[in-house]
Parts: sequence; C-alpha cells; structure tokens
Amino acid sequence: MSDLNAAMATIAQKTEQFLEAHLTAQQLSAPLPAPERLINAVRHGALNGGKRLRPVLVHLTANLFPQPAGDLIQAGAAIECVHCYSLVHDDLPDMDDDDLRRGKPTVHKAFDPATAILAGDALLTHAFALLADGNCHPDPALRNQLVIELVEGAGVGGMAGGQMRDIEGERKGYDPETISLIHAMKTGALIRASVRIGALMGGASKDELAVLTQFGEAAGRIYQLADDILDATQSSEQLGKTAGKDEAQGKSTLIASHGLAHARSALQDELNDALPLLTPFGDRAAPLAQLVTHFAERQS
Amino acid sequence: MSDLNAAMATIAQKTEQFLEAHLTAQQLSAPLPAPERLINAVRHGALNGGKRLRPVLVHLTANLFPQPAGDLIQAGAAIECVHCYSLVHDDLPDMDDDDLRRGKPTVHKAFDPATAILAGDALLTHAFALLADGNCHPDPALRNQLVIELVEGAGVGGMAGGQMRDIEGERKGYDPETISLIHAMKTGALIRASVRIGALMGGASKDELAVLTQFGEAAGRIYQLADDILDATQSSEQLGKTAGKDEAQGKSTLIASHGLAHARSALQDELNDALPLLTPFGDRAAPLAQLVTHFAERQS
Repeated sequence: MSDLNAAMATIAQKTEQFLEAHLTAQQLSAPLPAPERLINAVRHGALNGGKRLRPVLVHLTANLFPQPAGDLIQAGAAIECVHCYSLVHDDLPDMDDDDLRRGKPTVHKAFDPATAILAGDALLTHAFALLADGNCHPDPALRNQLVIELVEGAGVGGMAGGQMRDIEGERKGYDPETISLIHAMKTGALIRASVRIGALMGGASKDELAVLTQFGEAAGRIYQLADDILDATQSSEQLGKTAGKDEAQGKSTLIASHGLAHARSALQDELNDALPLLTPFGDRAAPLAQLVTHFAERQS
Repeated sequence: MSDLNAAMATIAQKTEQFLEAHLTAQQLSAPLPAPERLINAVRHGALNGGKRLRPVLVHLTANLFPQPAGDLIQAGAAIECVHCYSLVHDDLPDMDDDDLRRGKPTVHKAFDPATAILAGDALLTHAFALLADGNCHPDPALRNQLVIELVEGAGVGGMAGGQMRDIEGERKGYDPETISLIHAMKTGALIRASVRIGALMGGASKDELAVLTQFGEAAGRIYQLADDILDATQSSEQLGKTAGKDEAQGKSTLIASHGLAHARSALQDELNDALPLLTPFGDRAAPLAQLVTHFAERQS
C-alpha cells in the first residue's frame, strides 16, 4: 500500500505541476492575449490539489505494458481538465448550486456564474489540444484516437449525458437501474476513458484493449459503490462533504433498495470479477490491482 | 453574386444535413445511450437553418487549391458546432440572457438553463471528434493540427477569452482598442480558424497559410465593422434583432468615437488591403473575394 500511495502522490504532484505550468496566459494566449480573469478562474477550477485519480489510472494502466510511449502526465492532465470542467459546471447555481468544493469557494462563488461557465468551457476546450499535441504521443493516428476516447468519455453518451440523466431523475424519480446507468455515465465513462487512454499509450492490442475496457468499467462501478456506502455510513465530517445526500435527494441506490449488506457483497463480487482481468499482465498489474482494491476498501 | 449565393446555399444545406444526421442518439450513444432530452437540446441549438458562414469559409478557402483533401463539410460542421455552442452559452440567463434566437426560443427557454449548459458543453465536446475522425482528412497529423486550430479559435486566446473581455467591458467600460480586441477574439478567432482549417485541408504551404491567416483576420474585421455599421444605421426590424444595442451598452465602437463616415472608410480600407492577398490564387479566388466583398456590402 505504501508503494501505491507513493506512486499516487508522485503522479498527482506531477499532474498538478503540469497544469500549473500549462494553464497560464503565457501558454494559452494564441492567437490573442487571454484575459487574466479567465485564466485565474480556470486555474481556480483546475489547481485544487486533488488526488488526480484519472491521471493515476492512465499511468498505472499504461505501465501494464513494458514500453508505454508518449507523455502520460500530459494525457492524464487532459482528462483532469475535463474532470475539473465538469465540477465547475456541475457546481453552478443552475445545476447543483454548490458554494464549496474541497473547502474552497467554487468558481462561481470566487468569481461569478458567467465567468465559471466560461472557465469550464475553456478547460474542456484546451483539454483536446493537450491530446492532439505532438508531445503527447509520437503516433499522430493514436493521438486522434485519444481525442475520440476523451470525447466519448465526456460527451452525450458519457459524462454530460450522465449529468442530464441525473437532473431528469431529480424530477422524475430514480430506480436502481437508472441509478446504475447514471453512475456508469457520470463517473464511469471518464474512468473508462482514462483506462483506455492508458492502454492505448501502452500499446495494447485490440484484445488487450477489450479486456482493459471491461476492467475500467468495473473500476468505475467499484469506485461508485464504495462512494454510495460511504455516503450512507459516514458522518459529513468524516466524509469532508454532506453525508446522506443520496437518501435526502431520493436516490434509490442499491443500499436503499437492498440494504447495506447487499451493497457490500455486490462490491466484493465486482472486485472478485475485476481482479482476474489483470492476470495476463503478471507482476506489472500489482499497482493497478492495489488501486482498485483500495477503491473498494474506502468503504470499510 | 448569384453564383456565390448558390454556392453558399449549397454548403449551408449540406452542413445542415450533416448535422441533422450526426447529432442523433444513434450516432452519439457511445459508450452508453445518450438521453433523448440532451440530444433534443443539442439539436435545438445546432439545427437552426443558419447561413453556416464558417463552413462556407472552410469550403471556399480549401478551394483556392487545386486538390483539397478530406471532407470539407465534416470539418465545417465541427466549427459550426463550436459556433452554436457559443450561442447557446452566450444566451444563458447568467450571460446575455436572451430569450430568442432567429425567432425561436433559445435553448434555455425551450428547455431550461441546466440543459442549455449541458447542450453547449456537448456541442463543444463532439466538435473535436469530428475533426479527429478518419473521414475528416486522410492525414492523421493534419487532423491533429485541425483540432489544435479549433481549440485556439475557441479557447481563452480566442472566442471564450473574447466573451470574458466583453463581460469585463460591460462592467469597466470600453475603449476603441478594447472593442477591437474583443471583436478579434469573440468573432474573429473562429473566422480565422475557419480560413486556416480550409487552407490546411487545401494543402497550403507555410507561406500560403501565413497569407491566408492575414486574410482570415481581415475577413473577421470586415464582418464585424459591417455589423457595427448595420447596428448603428438600421432599424431593429430590418436587422431582425435589437438595433442600437452597442450604443445602449456603452460600447464605444469606431462609430461612436469617430463617426459613421470614418467607419465606412475604415471598412473600405480593410477590403482594399484584404483582396490583394488573394491575387496569388488567381481565378480560384473569385468566390472567396466575392464573399468578403459581400460582408462589406451588407452595410450599404
């Protein structure tokens, strides 16, 4: 675990440094000078000292392979820009209307809603240039594929579609199948894209990519199940955010419909199914297996 | 003129057809099923029977060259998605708060603000996949370049940055230099990107690209100057939108600071400088020259 923690901390730190250096007026003033206020809002939304879980997934998946090519930190940073854009927009008054994120004012509180809309738009926009850029990977055709993977993770069949389904659910009510689909789209699709982007940069064959896609989808479900259990069992203080939010919002998670014991057993089943998918990668798979086990253990 | 009008109508129609066929749940449900409401909002924002000026620019610029490669309609449609996303977000209550666009309710009026935010996000996201897709152009490295061109046109040094500067100007006041910069970013950057994307798909050399970039920047200024003159001289009815909006918003355009005659002469000067840039392209340049002349003549 301490090896994994050290690896995770290093990737998080390098991602933060990359974003710190890249999200500047100097780097992004093309063709014309970027306004300081927008750069500041973009940085407020992206430089938050997060765990950078998606970049970690890119890195650990690429390292299932003996010779990953390209700049894994740059690719991870692109996904992180998309993740951060989604937080900035989801926090808006017209969306979830959250004032705080990681103990800091959200972008629309620190600036204003119009600036937050633009900052989210800008993070989303610039993410794609990071993947299309020659430094990201030596093979231009593979860079095109990375762009398409990120679009699918973020688009109407992924994250944005998941947020739409979540908003519709708040009005119409949820059932467990809908909740699963919302999770798979809202959280799962970008986790899946992170694993696939790592696999592609590792040089995965078609078959390896298919297996790792399965693994990425399972990782998303494990992450979300553990999150649901945490939400139901921990205090807001332990959680660092409002606890019991799912129940308060009428979200019939697996816990509400089938109880906590069932959710814990479903989580264990998911983990038992996911880990063998990594067997073909031998010793190289240990960190990724540890990470997903760590996701599952968060709830205990 | 009638030849140009026919060509423009054909490109607009093909672009509309492309978007009509592409912006569907069937096309965009990867990895998971896109929600109908979001698809409908995306379509409401993008299928508006507009003039599709940016796709026209891509097409006419690529056709300065004897053998443009790739699918010019697909590339133009990608830029149009970005243009439409910007309209959807600019119309939001937290931004310009407009209820009508081309006589139809804006997306946030037809749906709601949260859906409009997501629909804009989705249009922006999927635009990049259209450029990265193999059908767009046979050369993968060039496709990456197209992605980067669109990011720069749309990003903090382009359209999003221009909108930010415009919002700041509403609070702090404008001077003519600021207005010019706002126009160059908010409208000019995507027009410039359209011309550059057309040039790249035409197979422009480095020098040709540089000349056409100058032309694209001039085309943006001409378009905007004519728009300013129209705003100052026509009734709302003639304009199809609220006239005198610039003056009412305290925007010191060239007209407010130097008068209408000066603005008309500046427009003529821009046109006189821009057209000779097309001379090296011979007869093939006639439609593009006509188009930009047409921009300038809108004000008379």
